[in-house]
Amino acid sequence: MNSIQHIVFIGAGNVATHLATAFQQSGKTIDQIYSRSEYSAKKLANKIGCSYTTNINELNLNSELYIVAVKDQVLPEILKKIKLKKKLIVHTSGLHTMNLLKKCSENYGIFYPLQTLTIKRKINTNAIPICIEANSKKNQEILSDLAHLFTENVRIVDSEKRKILHLAAVFACNYTNHLYSIAEDILKNAEIPFNLLHPLIKETAEKAIETGPFEAQTGPARRNDLKVIQSHKKLLTNKEQKNIYSLLSKSIIKKYFQKDNENEKL
Amino acid sequence: MNSIQHIVFIGAGNVATHLATAFQQSGKTIDQIYSRSEYSAKKLANKIGCSYTTNINELNLNSELYIVAVKDQVLPEILKKIKLKKKLIVHTSGLHTMNLLKKCSENYGIFYPLQTLTIKRKINTNAIPICIEANSKKNQEILSDLAHLFTENVRIVDSEKRKILHLAAVFACNYTNHLYSIAEDILKNAEIPFNLLHPLIKETAEKAIETGPFEAQTGPARRNDLKVIQSHKKLLTNKEQKNIYSLLSKSIIKKYFQKDNENEKL
Repeated sequence: MNSIQHIVFIGAGNVATHLATAFQQSGKTIDQIYSRSEYSAKKLANKIGCSYTTNINELNLNSELYIVAVKDQVLPEILKKIKLKKKLIVHTSGLHTMNLLKKCSENYGIFYPLQTLTIKRKINTNAIPICIEANSKKNQEILSDLAHLFTENVRIVDSEKRKILHLAAVFACNYTNHLYSIAEDILKNAEIPFNLLHPLIKETAEKAIETGPFEAQTGPARRNDLKVIQSHKKLLTNKEQKNIYSLLSKSIIKKYFQKDNENEKL
Repeated sequence: MNSIQHIVFIGAGNVATHLATAFQQSGKTIDQIYSRSEYSAKKLANKIGCSYTTNINELNLNSELYIVAVKDQVLPEILKKIKLKKKLIVHTSGLHTMNLLKKCSENYGIFYPLQTLTIKRKINTNAIPICIEANSKKNQEILSDLAHLFTENVRIVDSEKRKILHLAAVFACNYTNHLYSIAEDILKNAEIPFNLLHPLIKETAEKAIETGPFEAQTGPARRNDLKVIQSHKKLLTNKEQKNIYSLLSKSIIKKYFQKDNENEKL
């Protein structure tokens, strides 16, 4: 039996909180939380009901799995301080390669949740796809079994592809959300409630999922309607919003204009 | 009784198709479809089971309501050719003012569906919010009653606010979808299936709806993580994608950095 029961979390932010909760609800034991921030460490430890530390030298070395879920910026620094010999260690970063863990232990891997996670917001754990990578077939199986405890959506993805996935996710999630935010700002200025856009936002996501985004595209730029585009630009008094509008409308026109030409040639 | 039974559609595209179908399913009679394109006119007329014409002079003048659902580019030209005396006429454009209809009839208004509509994709009609405007209280009531036949989401919105709504919708829908499309292209290049992003796209939309997009923001730019941003830019070989990445990451950093400063001052 390779089954793991005991887990230590290094990190106490959005990802650590969601994963620690998911594992605990799946019957696993969280032994300890480490965070540089006492506030965060204590908060997550209280939620889980386990001990915490802010001193990396006090890391509980008797656990079975170490999940490092910290900001990408600080991940390399923290990993330098962790020596586990043979204990399994994973990080949850979309960006960093698996090799970064080589010096921490003989057994290592990746446990990357491809989802937007915020501490405050509860999420159905089944909606968290997990991308797995490991330094051995055995470790890959262990991680895959663990992920399957709370989600059916488990994928084996190597470091190069994971980096690309992470980049694509920035467009599909972070930047998409920022566009919602710009829409909200535009409406606020005109004292129009943002909830008027809720059905549109929902349907836009569902349509892209069901028909694919290329087919789903609508709007002035898709119709190459330069008059509408011009009048929208006039409405935009914020320079930054205007630049974003210009760049994205040009990008859509280019995409569909080129495509139409290609189709005409067929 | 002001209730309208008979409707003529001018236009046979995405919006006309969805509205004609919704009205027919609500028990209304579609008398005629006009479109410059015989293919489109015939297709929608066949779907509905009514007559069609491609000659604007053959417009059936015995109907009760005329819904002009054509591209924004051609709307002003088409309206010049329509003279209805007292028959109620509306257009469905987010952009154009109501006054454009003044010369068509004494009774006019707006029937603007704030939704992304594609002919091929069926949509629950209740998910189509309708923004109403009219030149009289009576006409406003008639249009509101008609919209309520298939949706509970009916709003009275004047031309100025509708223009702003339309602009915000371009960000929240059209540009958002384009970002999904860029994500799909990035994944295609690396032979990664787009469906890995489906749960993320769904959750991003739901989170923005439930918590508001400002709170919902996550990602490298939200954390001001310049190292990740730099390495993402290196990964992007497409110049246009790189420009979009740069502009949006800067915009997010600016938004939250300024906000943090403001909060610090409080």
